[in-house]
Amino acid sequence: MKKKFAVIYPGTFDPITIGHINIIKRALRIFNKVIIAVAEDTSKKTLFTTKERVLMIKESLKGYKNVEIDTFKGLLMDYAKKKGINTILRGLRTVQDFEYELQMALANKKLNPECETIFMMTEGAYSYFSSSLIKEIAHLKGNIKNMVPSPVEKMIKRKFQSKEV
Amino acid sequence: MKKKFAVIYPGTFDPITIGHINIIKRALRIFNKVIIAVAEDTSKKTLFTTKERVLMIKESLKGYKNVEIDTFKGLLMDYAKKKGINTILRGLRTVQDFEYELQMALANKKLNPECETIFMMTEGAYSYFSSSLIKEIAHLKGNIKNMVPSPVEKMIKRKFQSKEV
Amino acid sequence: MKKKFAVIYPGTFDPITIGHINIIKRALRIFNKVIIAVAEDTSKKTLFTTKERVLMIKESLKGYKNVEIDTFKGLLMDYAKKKGINTILRGLRTVQDFEYELQMALANKKLNPECETIFMMTEGAYSYFSSSLIKEIAHLKGNIKNMVPSPVEKMIKRKFQSKEV
Amino acid sequence: MKKKFAVIYPGTFDPITIGHINIIKRALRIFNKVIIAVAEDTSKKTLFTTKERVLMIKESLKGYKNVEIDTFKGLLMDYAKKKGINTILRGLRTVQDFEYELQMALANKKLNPECETIFMMTEGAYSYFSSSLIKEIAHLKGNIKNMVPSPVEKMIKRKFQSKEV
Amino acid sequence: MKKKFAVIYPGTFDPITIGHINIIKRALRIFNKVIIAVAEDTSKKTLFTTKERVLMIKESLKGYKNVEIDTFKGLLMDYAKKKGINTILRGLRTVQDFEYELQMALANKKLNPECETIFMMTEGAYSYFSSSLIKEIAHLKGNIKNMVPSPVEKMIKRKFQSKEV
Amino acid sequence: MKKKFAVIYPGTFDPITIGHINIIKRALRIFNKVIIAVAEDTSKKTLFTTKERVLMIKESLKGYKNVEIDTFKGLLMDYAKKKGINTILRGLRTVQDFEYELQMALANKKLNPECETIFMMTEGAYSYFSSSLIKEIAHLKGNIKNMVPSPVEKMIKRKFQSKEV
Repeated sequence: MKKKFAVIYPGTFDPITIGHINIIKRALRIFNKVIIAVAEDTSKKTLFTTKERVLMIKESLKGYKNVEIDTFKGLLMDYAKKKGINTILRGLRTVQDFEYELQMALANKKLNPECETIFMMTEGAYSYFSSSLIKEIAHLKGNIKNMVPSPVEKMIKRKFQSKEV
Repeated sequence: MKKKFAVIYPGTFDPITIGHINIIKRALRIFNKVIIAVAEDTSKKTLFTTKERVLMIKESLKGYKNVEIDTFKGLLMDYAKKKGINTILRGLRTVQDFEYELQMALANKKLNPECETIFMMTEGAYSYFSSSLIKEIAHLKGNIKNMVPSPVEKMIKRKFQSKEV
Repeated sequence: MKKKFAVIYPGTFDPITIGHINIIKRALRIFNKVIIAVAEDTSKKTLFTTKERVLMIKESLKGYKNVEIDTFKGLLMDYAKKKGINTILRGLRTVQDFEYELQMALANKKLNPECETIFMMTEGAYSYFSSSLIKEIAHLKGNIKNMVPSPVEKMIKRKFQSKEV
Repeated sequence: MKKKFAVIYPGTFDPITIGHINIIKRALRIFNKVIIAVAEDTSKKTLFTTKERVLMIKESLKGYKNVEIDTFKGLLMDYAKKKGINTILRGLRTVQDFEYELQMALANKKLNPECETIFMMTEGAYSYFSSSLIKEIAHLKGNIKNMVPSPVEKMIKRKFQSKEV
Repeated sequence: MKKKFAVIYPGTFDPITIGHINIIKRALRIFNKVIIAVAEDTSKKTLFTTKERVLMIKESLKGYKNVEIDTFKGLLMDYAKKKGINTILRGLRTVQDFEYELQMALANKKLNPECETIFMMTEGAYSYFSSSLIKEIAHLKGNIKNMVPSPVEKMIKRKFQSKEV
Repeated sequence: MKKKFAVIYPGTFDPITIGHINIIKRALRIFNKVIIAVAEDTSKKTLFTTKERVLMIKESLKGYKNVEIDTFKGLLMDYAKKKGINTILRGLRTVQDFEYELQMALANKKLNPECETIFMMTEGAYSYFSSSLIKEIAHLKGNIKNMVPSPVEKMIKRKFQSKEV
């Protein structure tokens, strides 16, 4: 396979956080292109629809070059094959992440031996928070400024308000 | 910094194992060049001299293209600057690895904010063994075939024999 | 803020266990007051209502001085501000606890930088069991004596009996 | 209690995987009998009925001697007493497993002090995958060959097809 | 290989603790014989000589039936072959133990595929302490009663006294 | 024991870091006094003498009120008794820390049941680094500014220069 120096950064992004953006920025220093691949089939129930999740990413990454925002159904490995990309990027925050990701990386290797997964450690004071924790804080009316990009902050607020009405 | 699609793969390599070679092979699928950087200053006492460690890597990677074998003194981040490379590659095997590497990655980020560390999970039945465990097995006269490349196997045997005389 | 030598011990307490009581007793050696704050908003579905959870705590701590039992809605950090208390107490049992609590402590620090979280390690043969495990054992008709205070034991039994009828 | 050199290997087995079979095979080297005990009461929602789970185990272990396949309701410790067996066998794959199993082993010790739990580390390239991960892969139409015995592979395919119709 | 219902319990035992004895007692419920195998070659510097370590075990296990105390040099797997035993027993206390033991169990499997390692979780208030921690406490003149059998207590005291003279 | 609202913060402090100072500052919000207790007996070989370690703490905490700097020999629990203080404070950074501290807290509880250990999670970008990592960076001539207080920075530089001459 000809090297493309592109990575797929897959996830649910429900919603995209400052931590995700930190990973994307740093990956852009290494690769020519980062494809953000939003999972449509996900075992977890999402707060936002796929459309909303994509929209929040688009608004949060306005002005970024070399970023492609896409969605995928089914297996990530099948999506990677279809795109002709052999590198997956994942962030690591905790030991629990590590064990889950190790298992996924090994499973993906069986499904598509040509495809490699690389990891970056999440860094920065606000990067550490997971999408779930941020949603919980927002749900309890806490301030999530600095934990998510501002377009996401607005959209989360609207979501929780509409739920209450 | 112009992207070079090259990574530095630093380590003590005392000695290089099947696990290291697995990481190198897979990195070559993603990058144009892998620079294996053997640390000369290391807080751990090594079994092999820097020269021996380099030699074993050379013999184990005979025929590999796009691989450069080098040594460095002092801080890895200073070496990376000197080489003009902004990507470091490290393998991850265990939770204990993960916590150590997380700490190192954050420290390196402070020392050289332009430089990124990426990780790959070690895979494969024999890849899992650390250099220390392999030396311990060899020291107790166990069979380390399949755990290290054959040039390393020979050199370890010779080392332990000469020690006993 | 004037020091009050009081701590908030927040939780779902669904139900309170011997482990929680161990933490409360030991905290009373250090502080003048322990405020047990029962979370009303919780993402987990509880077996007992807030009222029942408070009642079980009251009966289990009969005769304890310097203990206040309260409930709270919304963010813990907002509750702490309202009470004028700057110290939160949490128990730690496992590595998984540790990672979750680390994340929560950092998030709470962002939300209320004046407020500190301190931790105590759970100790003692029966203290180790989580509320969930105890409920599972009780549900399967196992003996939970010694794992929960006796008022809780009675209430759990009644709960599972009424469910079966 | 007279020693019986038999172990109970309990689980949900939803479905049985190559990893479970690896543990069973190795336990048969040590013990005279392995009783595979399928839990009927389980807090997790299963994909397969108890009957289906038992059937898949039977077909996957055709030709194995010294294996008994059974089901149980209620507490494992009560089941062990009823069978007159004092040894439980569990597989360990990850740190997360370890912490959960440690907690369960201690709880079971309280419930039945005569009964011991022993552990074996899962080994082998495909053994590492959990039943949940395998179901997720199958659900996304991935290839689970080599991760489960072939009777299971067929049954999973059928299950997901019927769900889609 | 004919089943022998015997296990080898290997270790440095520098010195034997209440935790080791807890494991031995419980293993005797399952197996016909427990062979305590004291490692003579060990990378760690021991406080006690092999002779002293064996003596302390003997005195601590006076009156135990079905226990054999032995020493071994070289690889554990070679020792197991020589004894004709195919089961190794190890205790697990912590996540750090778990990762080390997982690596050792896999390495031993490569060296001797017929031999299985089983694990038991350490239990009990005093069982948790490692030999190293106990030596550190004794060295600082702390009370180690209840952490080690009484013959060990005496011998440690004597050792540290003689060192000071 | 009359409550004193004072904590002992013990350690080797070889040298004191920004992370230690972060813990001390936050403890001063909760307690009336923080006693920094420098261990003289330590199994690890220190870079700095006890005198130097105390001096660096003094200079780094100039202007802090309610801080006492002391040294101790022998068991921490004996020191706590002598001081009449029943609360120990420790920082937690990693899972590895957690397991070690859990073991120490349980051992200390056996040695002195009246004394409690509380923990705080290390926070902040530079707080994360251990004394060992900082010494390693300094040894390799890396910049440790922002990782240690400035009096420590000077003293480390001097130490490594004098070693080289």
